[in-house]
Amino acid sequence: MRAVIMEAPGKIAVGEREDPKILKPTDAVIRITATCICGSDLWPYRGVEPVDHTPMGHEYVGIVEEIGSEVKTVKPGDFVVGSFVISCGECEICDSGYPSKCVNFEFVSVTIGTQAERARIPYADGTLVKTPGQPGPELIPALLAASDVLGTGWFAADAAQAGPGKVVVVVGDGAVGLMGVLAAKQMGAERIIAMSRHPERQRLAREYGATDIVEERGDAGAARVKELTGGLGAHSVIEAVGTEESLSQAIRACRPGGHIGFVGVAHDGVQIPADELFFAEVHLHGGPAPVRRYLPELIRLIWDREIDPGRVFDLTLPLEQAASGYEAMHERRAVKVMLTV
Amino acid sequence: MRAVIMEAPGKIAVGEREDPKILKPTDAVIRITATCICGSDLWPYRGVEPVDHTPMGHEYVGIVEEIGSEVKTVKPGDFVVGSFVISCGECEICDSGYPSKCVNFEFVSVTIGTQAERARIPYADGTLVKTPGQPGPELIPALLAASDVLGTGWFAADAAQAGPGKVVVVVGDGAVGLMGVLAAKQMGAERIIAMSRHPERQRLAREYGATDIVEERGDAGAARVKELTGGLGAHSVIEAVGTEESLSQAIRACRPGGHIGFVGVAHDGVQIPADELFFAEVHLHGGPAPVRRYLPELIRLIWDREIDPGRVFDLTLPLEQAASGYEAMHERRAVKVMLTV
Repeated sequence: MRAVIMEAPGKIAVGEREDPKILKPTDAVIRITATCICGSDLWPYRGVEPVDHTPMGHEYVGIVEEIGSEVKTVKPGDFVVGSFVISCGECEICDSGYPSKCVNFEFVSVTIGTQAERARIPYADGTLVKTPGQPGPELIPALLAASDVLGTGWFAADAAQAGPGKVVVVVGDGAVGLMGVLAAKQMGAERIIAMSRHPERQRLAREYGATDIVEERGDAGAARVKELTGGLGAHSVIEAVGTEESLSQAIRACRPGGHIGFVGVAHDGVQIPADELFFAEVHLHGGPAPVRRYLPELIRLIWDREIDPGRVFDLTLPLEQAASGYEAMHERRAVKVMLTV
Repeated sequence: MRAVIMEAPGKIAVGEREDPKILKPTDAVIRITATCICGSDLWPYRGVEPVDHTPMGHEYVGIVEEIGSEVKTVKPGDFVVGSFVISCGECEICDSGYPSKCVNFEFVSVTIGTQAERARIPYADGTLVKTPGQPGPELIPALLAASDVLGTGWFAADAAQAGPGKVVVVVGDGAVGLMGVLAAKQMGAERIIAMSRHPERQRLAREYGATDIVEERGDAGAARVKELTGGLGAHSVIEAVGTEESLSQAIRACRPGGHIGFVGVAHDGVQIPADELFFAEVHLHGGPAPVRRYLPELIRLIWDREIDPGRVFDLTLPLEQAASGYEAMHERRAVKVMLTV
């Protein structure tokens, strides 16, 4: 099958990989309809993380082709959305709502790579969710977004306890931040402050429900949020960047007793000053989003046209042109690139 | 009046300070019945924090002597317990349950100093809570504990969501850690694992409700907790130390989706690795405990003899002998020292 391989930093090829097969009775093989490029794929692309002829991709929607003998909830022909983390759905951690930390977890990006024509999905029952029917092409981008970027923004808003009466700040105007805005709006937040200095992203943030835009960053950004909130800070903060500056900005923008949902992937060496966190007296919760927990609800909202996260894809290319897609995201010419298969 | 002054690191004197007076209509002046020495008082004592002829003390119980014209909830003659943080009780932050971050807050240790015969308490209505009557001498230690060390352990257990069916780990066997054990027990925790290698403190931890003792520290300690919890880690972790090692131990001992209540005062330079926190996917909440929020309930539990936090004081001295008390705590010969006035 055809698949995206990152040969080295900045070097994307589309070449041949062996077709996946059922290896265990809980596996499914799916034919991928659409996949995409994630902000986290840019880390190896930029040489920040090691990469060497690595299959890429962890977001995916597609049609089940084959299932193992123990798979019960999906069957060949079903259209499915899957999480970017494989989860068994049966352990105590899955059961408590954290499939992203399942005792049998695998990162799809590490062991599978879905920027390809097909993928073997272990623990199909615990990882995939089928849609109510075959979606029309207009729904594909939205369903694909649910696989990671929407699910991640949703988790961040949930962890930040966005809801009625709350002022929510979103740090980061990438795809996850924008999905955080959508999620906060959907959860009923009273006011949503998006921190962004890019006119295009500001526009999309407003479309998704942002009521205020703050262009300042760092301490100046946090001070501006305080000004907008009677000196107290926001009830809820979504942190969707993962750097020391953005984490500090999030902590300083949050009121005492408030909640920060942090989903920006923090890299090795990023530190949080414990005394600042202590005296801020905020709640902090984050990590790899337990997307599978939210998938049934997200699919329903998309199917019923209550939300349209698909607009976050501002460039669509065929799989064969993946290299152009990486380039566009790297150069920030695109927020998020969909690859059709 | 007589009062404790830390003249320099390691140098405690009891000398004369001016008697406090009502300065604002919301003030009360109380005659202190008992006060104590806090683990945090040892930081300047050991030269880790600067100190120069500083009045000391922030925990206190006593009898109201005089009130300002706007004070409504306490009157002269009332026996009162106060928080170690002054809070107005009327701002939005107090109202949301975080009086320790009140917009009008003062740290009693910084602006008042209660290791003394008397103290002026600003915002008396928002800071003090009166007991149902005059307590007998046997209740004084327990009520004094509520002022900080019990309230702080209680907050940690609450932030860690200790409760029925939960496995709770307590990192730190000082007075706050021991009060965390008591709080977790009172909240109905199923199993309480105290991390301690001091036989005396292990004994007290068991008396307060610990079901297991883990003597290992750091990674070995976290690994032992994992062993005791089917490989998953604890649901709830109380962190009552505040060092990098103890914070890391707390994060590693907690299961994904679990809750860490951190109340060990983190000092300048202590860092939390963001990537470790991210991939652990725990909830983290802590800071200066909002003791005033819990005081009515804690006083009721003490008054009704449902809890006896007073046993945490294993040395009682008159105020004049404060220097011996500091020495005993510094040398870990005493868990916590009560000073009678």
